[in-house]
Amino acid sequence: MTDHDSLRALTEAVREFSRERDWEQFQDPKSLILALVGEVGELAELFQWIPADGAIEHFAEPARKQRAAEEISDVLIYLVRLADVLGIDLGPEANAKLEDSSRRFAPDAVRGTAPAKE
Amino acid sequence: MTDHDSLRALTEAVREFSRERDWEQFQDPKSLILALVGEVGELAELFQWIPADGAIEHFAEPARKQRAAEEISDVLIYLVRLADVLGIDLGPEANAKLEDSSRRFAPDAVRGTAPAKE
Amino acid sequence: MTDHDSLRALTEAVREFSRERDWEQFQDPKSLILALVGEVGELAELFQWIPADGAIEHFAEPARKQRAAEEISDVLIYLVRLADVLGIDLGPEANAKLEDSSRRFAPDAVRGTAPAKE
Amino acid sequence: MTDHDSLRALTEAVREFSRERDWEQFQDPKSLILALVGEVGELAELFQWIPADGAIEHFAEPARKQRAAEEISDVLIYLVRLADVLGIDLGPEANAKLEDSSRRFAPDAVRGTAPAKE
Repeated sequence: MTDHDSLRALTEAVREFSRERDWEQFQDPKSLILALVGEVGELAELFQWIPADGAIEHFAEPARKQRAAEEISDVLIYLVRLADVLGIDLGPEANAKLEDSSRRFAPDAVRGTAPAKE
Repeated sequence: MTDHDSLRALTEAVREFSRERDWEQFQDPKSLILALVGEVGELAELFQWIPADGAIEHFAEPARKQRAAEEISDVLIYLVRLADVLGIDLGPEANAKLEDSSRRFAPDAVRGTAPAKE
Repeated sequence: MTDHDSLRALTEAVREFSRERDWEQFQDPKSLILALVGEVGELAELFQWIPADGAIEHFAEPARKQRAAEEISDVLIYLVRLADVLGIDLGPEANAKLEDSSRRFAPDAVRGTAPAKE
Repeated sequence: MTDHDSLRALTEAVREFSRERDWEQFQDPKSLILALVGEVGELAELFQWIPADGAIEHFAEPARKQRAAEEISDVLIYLVRLADVLGIDLGPEANAKLEDSSRRFAPDAVRGTAPAKE
């Protein structure tokens, strides 16, 4: 019984999916990043002309929410596949990165200010 | 004790990180997709000039693997935040999407052939 | 005297820039698309947290306008380089594509409606 | 008679195309960047599974070259539209950016070395 909340279980499912189709030969890191970019593009297209302040409400409608969920899922699937071919255990890494950001951006110093990009 | 393999736990940690900094006000879906694009761009820059067939070996070196892990983590962090503001439970959705792909691309029909893009 | 409005002149300048540095060896199409993605990411980062309806005004300030111009320029530079390595004469192609869109989206049929994405 | 090599002429044609359809209302900078990301995604999908060292030859075939030309054109069309809504004269800016890079990366210092990304 698969744990549907587990990054490792999803990673193994995508690996098995790729292996059964003999698609591992196409999945070098640069090709996977391009595939990821393709899925990010489809996600962007879904939102591009929706007014920014009405986007959450617009995508609360069930069929639209389903479409958004599918596009976000496609991005995640290529992302875990990329981490897998690089031998990266993504869950612990993402938690460590978030903890690192927590230290770098102290709440009292940055509260309510958009994170600066030079 | 946080489960570092859980998408829901990561989602809650990112939500709490955002709330403590009062950054939720900036995190409408379109802005989050642009932030995701920014992180995908940093990931792409890391790999852009590395020869395709040597990329896995190149990033096996520990410091480089760490950099790749951080960039992939940044993409994941914005991705789970986006799913969260849209009310999407990402793990089950990604598993459902993969199962859907498994049905659409039968192994015997597609084995060893690059997935077609018209 | 270079024509600074000409796509062909820019294409030749980028080609010469690449040749003088012996960088053509790195510029296969997939690598150039990843480099393009990197620059699009920097552009996205510049705009990500700026409120949508104030973005034009925000970037009217000279130093910010200069930053935006530089990021958009970086995207264009990689885009003309990509077209060049593929032997594509980008100006006529872009005009033909726009004329094609003009036919597909008749003004009277689509006026004031956001272009549909399924 | 339009000059099909001119960035300014293309910019005006895209502006007129947008105005005739009353689409300017949707074309704030963040929405245009998302549309650009969508087109970059379609470009990436075209190349993702093609072996890196055979990509130029693969896309030399006329129908494929035409598809690539169309996707690159779509990126350019949104890029000039973005520059236009920000009041940026893209040709001179791109030439200035390239000259700036020419100074920062002296040929004798960088020849044959992939441009470093930390």
